[in-house]
Amino acid sequence: MSVNTFGRVLRFTTWGESHGPAIGAVVDGCPPGIALTEADIQPFLDARRPGQSKYTTQRKEPDQVRILSGVFEAPDGKQRTTGTPISLMIENVDQRSKDYSEVAKAFRPGHADYAYDAKYGFRDYRGGGRSSARETAMRVAAGAIARLIIPEVKILGWVEQIAETPVLYSRFDEQEIARNPFFCPDPETVPAWEKVVDEARKSGNSVGAQVACWAEGVPAGWGAPVYGKLSADLAAAMMGVNAVKGVEIGDGFAASMTTGDANADAMRPDADGKPKFLSNHAGGIAGGISTGQPVTCRVAFKPTSSILTPVETITSDGEATEIRTKGRHDPCVGIRGVPVVEAMMALVLADHKLLHRAQCG
Amino acid sequence: MSVNTFGRVLRFTTWGESHGPAIGAVVDGCPPGIALTEADIQPFLDARRPGQSKYTTQRKEPDQVRILSGVFEAPDGKQRTTGTPISLMIENVDQRSKDYSEVAKAFRPGHADYAYDAKYGFRDYRGGGRSSARETAMRVAAGAIARLIIPEVKILGWVEQIAETPVLYSRFDEQEIARNPFFCPDPETVPAWEKVVDEARKSGNSVGAQVACWAEGVPAGWGAPVYGKLSADLAAAMMGVNAVKGVEIGDGFAASMTTGDANADAMRPDADGKPKFLSNHAGGIAGGISTGQPVTCRVAFKPTSSILTPVETITSDGEATEIRTKGRHDPCVGIRGVPVVEAMMALVLADHKLLHRAQCG
Amino acid sequence: MSVNTFGRVLRFTTWGESHGPAIGAVVDGCPPGIALTEADIQPFLDARRPGQSKYTTQRKEPDQVRILSGVFEAPDGKQRTTGTPISLMIENVDQRSKDYSEVAKAFRPGHADYAYDAKYGFRDYRGGGRSSARETAMRVAAGAIARLIIPEVKILGWVEQIAETPVLYSRFDEQEIARNPFFCPDPETVPAWEKVVDEARKSGNSVGAQVACWAEGVPAGWGAPVYGKLSADLAAAMMGVNAVKGVEIGDGFAASMTTGDANADAMRPDADGKPKFLSNHAGGIAGGISTGQPVTCRVAFKPTSSILTPVETITSDGEATEIRTKGRHDPCVGIRGVPVVEAMMALVLADHKLLHRAQCG
Amino acid sequence: MSVNTFGRVLRFTTWGESHGPAIGAVVDGCPPGIALTEADIQPFLDARRPGQSKYTTQRKEPDQVRILSGVFEAPDGKQRTTGTPISLMIENVDQRSKDYSEVAKAFRPGHADYAYDAKYGFRDYRGGGRSSARETAMRVAAGAIARLIIPEVKILGWVEQIAETPVLYSRFDEQEIARNPFFCPDPETVPAWEKVVDEARKSGNSVGAQVACWAEGVPAGWGAPVYGKLSADLAAAMMGVNAVKGVEIGDGFAASMTTGDANADAMRPDADGKPKFLSNHAGGIAGGISTGQPVTCRVAFKPTSSILTPVETITSDGEATEIRTKGRHDPCVGIRGVPVVEAMMALVLADHKLLHRAQCG
Repeated sequence: MSVNTFGRVLRFTTWGESHGPAIGAVVDGCPPGIALTEADIQPFLDARRPGQSKYTTQRKEPDQVRILSGVFEAPDGKQRTTGTPISLMIENVDQRSKDYSEVAKAFRPGHADYAYDAKYGFRDYRGGGRSSARETAMRVAAGAIARLIIPEVKILGWVEQIAETPVLYSRFDEQEIARNPFFCPDPETVPAWEKVVDEARKSGNSVGAQVACWAEGVPAGWGAPVYGKLSADLAAAMMGVNAVKGVEIGDGFAASMTTGDANADAMRPDADGKPKFLSNHAGGIAGGISTGQPVTCRVAFKPTSSILTPVETITSDGEATEIRTKGRHDPCVGIRGVPVVEAMMALVLADHKLLHRAQCG
Repeated sequence: MSVNTFGRVLRFTTWGESHGPAIGAVVDGCPPGIALTEADIQPFLDARRPGQSKYTTQRKEPDQVRILSGVFEAPDGKQRTTGTPISLMIENVDQRSKDYSEVAKAFRPGHADYAYDAKYGFRDYRGGGRSSARETAMRVAAGAIARLIIPEVKILGWVEQIAETPVLYSRFDEQEIARNPFFCPDPETVPAWEKVVDEARKSGNSVGAQVACWAEGVPAGWGAPVYGKLSADLAAAMMGVNAVKGVEIGDGFAASMTTGDANADAMRPDADGKPKFLSNHAGGIAGGISTGQPVTCRVAFKPTSSILTPVETITSDGEATEIRTKGRHDPCVGIRGVPVVEAMMALVLADHKLLHRAQCG
Repeated sequence: MSVNTFGRVLRFTTWGESHGPAIGAVVDGCPPGIALTEADIQPFLDARRPGQSKYTTQRKEPDQVRILSGVFEAPDGKQRTTGTPISLMIENVDQRSKDYSEVAKAFRPGHADYAYDAKYGFRDYRGGGRSSARETAMRVAAGAIARLIIPEVKILGWVEQIAETPVLYSRFDEQEIARNPFFCPDPETVPAWEKVVDEARKSGNSVGAQVACWAEGVPAGWGAPVYGKLSADLAAAMMGVNAVKGVEIGDGFAASMTTGDANADAMRPDADGKPKFLSNHAGGIAGGISTGQPVTCRVAFKPTSSILTPVETITSDGEATEIRTKGRHDPCVGIRGVPVVEAMMALVLADHKLLHRAQCG
Repeated sequence: MSVNTFGRVLRFTTWGESHGPAIGAVVDGCPPGIALTEADIQPFLDARRPGQSKYTTQRKEPDQVRILSGVFEAPDGKQRTTGTPISLMIENVDQRSKDYSEVAKAFRPGHADYAYDAKYGFRDYRGGGRSSARETAMRVAAGAIARLIIPEVKILGWVEQIAETPVLYSRFDEQEIARNPFFCPDPETVPAWEKVVDEARKSGNSVGAQVACWAEGVPAGWGAPVYGKLSADLAAAMMGVNAVKGVEIGDGFAASMTTGDANADAMRPDADGKPKFLSNHAGGIAGGISTGQPVTCRVAFKPTSSILTPVETITSDGEATEIRTKGRHDPCVGIRGVPVVEAMMALVLADHKLLHRAQCG
């Protein structure tokens, strides 16, 4: 029931505040015998790391992860998971807490400031404390371990739309995603996004984005009925990411505007008598259980709440004031959301793989 | 970790298949001393009950709920909850299992048939077995109990759009919702929906719908950080409802297309120094914790998968075939989704009320 | 976190009061494809059933179990588990609530009466309500299903001591256990127990007992470190049974009075290089994980608290009074504890079998 | 379901191996606003710390705990809990892994070596890895936080018996417990224990012990029925401590040897009409719920399995061998079990305090 833990069988718990000494995660339930070193995790953290282009926050965090437990040299000489909890830690380096002194007294609209104060009576206001997106670094680290549990699955995320500009899927190029600072699969959309994000950045404003994620290789049968649905767990996983306000599986809201015959995913037998689906409106999930098609979802990120435009707000003493959120912020938080969305997809799928074999052997 | 249980502190477990002898739920964690009889639950079941208009399935189920445990006559003479598990049961009456014989052999596209077989090796094919929307009757029953735990909260759901026809919010009339068979808050939209649903019904087709839900009176401070977010729990709750493919909190996907200054929910102090918000783009939740504004969400229901149009599919032996899903079905499953969405909202909020007082007293 | 649910992967939730209309359980997480009918459960309920000899309570309950969900005719024509929740129900028949009217006003010493009132404000006082040992019928029913999940394991329980009279292990005869009303493995001890229990019964008094339980065939590797220890889960399972006040694994308290060399379970390789243990002081568990030896435990049942001797107590109004617990009670509640202890052993082992395969494949 | 997490509402997860770089715990669910610094935790760690007398292991660990998250300067200037996860870490200093090279190849009888290998395929053999009692340092640290959640409760543990020598309760002196290296409440028993432990130490042998623990000030009403019993949670908590083989609540096994009238805890009304109990055979718990009396338990620790006497065992290759467990070990592991037992008592009680207020306000 821990509210800082995610998962059913593969469970990870994160801890740490944006400007505390460190952040960390404990990953429990990982199968033993999986080769694992920091080098398996670091590339995913690097993809999420701040300060890599002018389109993301300028906070410089090396985000060097350390594995503090749960691995040991196996008889084959490789460092492998032992089946015990894997403790991961990243030290916070570039904290600059002085940037946030004003926030101590006034609630930033759109942030968790007021809600935390209402709940807990006070809060660690430095950089958002526990509510900072910095916590997502640990999801990415845990997700890197989850990927090793599901080597049969390929996970791919990308930005699908920034503000009102979508990618053109006829130009989708998987290789392009890693080549630009927007995780954009369409090279011709990149310049438009550069413009919209740069304008937001320069004017102290921010923009929203939509992220798509796709998991190929998920066998039929992962997931569970009713309250353990793969779709429901994905929805919780994605809606729990900072700044997310919407989640779709498969066609999502578009499905609600169509008819049953248009939405049916017809099947034909393949050579082995297994179904070959003629479409994937369902996003690879039926009745909460995977069908063997790619599992697809779409995630809506709101614009970063930290903006330089003054907004009316109140102080913790209940006085009217205005606030401009100085400091270093992502003008489009959805961009760096891509590695986080991929990580949550990996974590949910790995968890359901283990859950499935618990019940169904 | 039970996949048939929902909730953290207030937990309910459902059981039963569409065409088994009965369906039921066990609600655990309910505070003691709450006045509760079947009459507190029945009206919500009646609102969801099938067979009430030509726009819903013609299966006739009285859906009479029985309380089998967890209540007792209190010293004041009223039947009250005792703090022990509340067992609820509804007997299945109008099962007509013969309607489903064809389904035993072929997988209905869009249904859980193939996924269940892939997971479990075989399945109860009568009426979808466990994957039937009949299970949601128990969510509605459990939700009625949840409402009694949060008397300070008013929950209101309605259909916002059927296929491509939305309601016009300038004509929103809360009283109207209960007056028409569509839970439609706009009387002038009703005829258009009658037409689209009736056409779908007559042609053996189906249509999707969007349901909105709104909870007023939620105090600031319910919810929890990171993996216990009110928004994430709502997303799981809603995405776990049969036929749901998308969930939004507050402005949802629309937020992802806008800018930070347009999306900010500015605050002014009220007479007590508490915030009066000037807008509610966030849907009453910030950082996963309620802000005191109405909690709002929107849920996308796909069109009912059961249609009379023949669709290509395969048999359990891996042969090609076609299937027309005969039997009695909702032409627009989203309509009867309204009481279910309301119930899930009540269950999530009641759970977080109790969770909040566990930690914060 | 439900306090009426037990287990990690195989989870069961019980509901019902001693004198309500019925009691029941929902068993979730059971693997699919296991042949299961009421006839697989009933014999275990019959072994626990009250009213079978003068040494147990005279309440007559047929304890006929019904399976309401989670099973279906498999392709081989047998009724098998489907992987969905199995709902079990037993109707209460012989309730005689009038016997308990006095209890409504005064707290019976040793019973849960005062504690329930202190916690919940009032209570279902009829026959102890939720705190009645009648609830253990559902553990026995759930345990019967658990046994089917672990066919490799043979579970055997017996009474080891009543009041101050132990069995003599040199005369241990497994076949004898089912032949007498005491689950006594030593025919020569039976007359002594007849005498002590009969004297207690006639004088309106009661006696305590110790129950031993032994599980053979548990492979090495079930259990988990630190907080998922097989031993800890067994301890919780047993201490949660009504009237239990002590639990031992292996040598238990005797181990605390000895030395390391006397307590060591030395090993020799068998023909396959697997360990053959020379003793089993540890009760088949090391570091919380099974070693392949028989898992053994011992459980202490206090004397039934319901006695005819008047005992000082207070009323719910805080007045001094005396109470004699009339009604029909077991003079030695430990006797009928044997099937319950066996059931809990089966449930813990089945749960850990599934948990083990979740993590370790 | 994490097997490295304990608790229902107040949950803590530990990580780390005996000879890894560090050990740690994440405590989640702690109420906000509690004054907390390392100085509140350190004294309890110091009480458990190894190397303080010749009667415990000579490993020298400073056991300096660091708080890495979950606290912040409150408006009153004090460092207080924020309601977010509290991460605790202790660096391992005195590891001497070379001592354990022989253990890599042979299984130490009584240790988890063989069971871990059977479960996970290989193991961190240095100092027992995850199965080392070193992990209990984190329980003590978490327990120190739990104590702050239940200031109304006074917890007191002591050693009650070493090998066959019990304390004499007529000489019980609470102040004495902290004055000798055995947590012995009876000064006249100390010399006898010195002798028995010293003899064991010198001969490379070890002895078992019994620890008693007592919690005063627990109000009536904590705990929960059936599977959330305070007694069952205590049993799991205690049986999960390294080397524990038995747990008793109240009179425990002695209760099983007596009669109902001798075991009844009669009540008289006090001035407020609340019960004043005339005895406490039940150990302060009835029906799984606290009665307001002191909660009492007794815990049996087996003799340390690490002994210098050669014992027959097998190698990981299945060959016969003998092993003498060199290294630094406690000749009587039960002694240092006292702070651990106290910590587990505090953790269970704090958890149930929060759980109680979740349901009962």
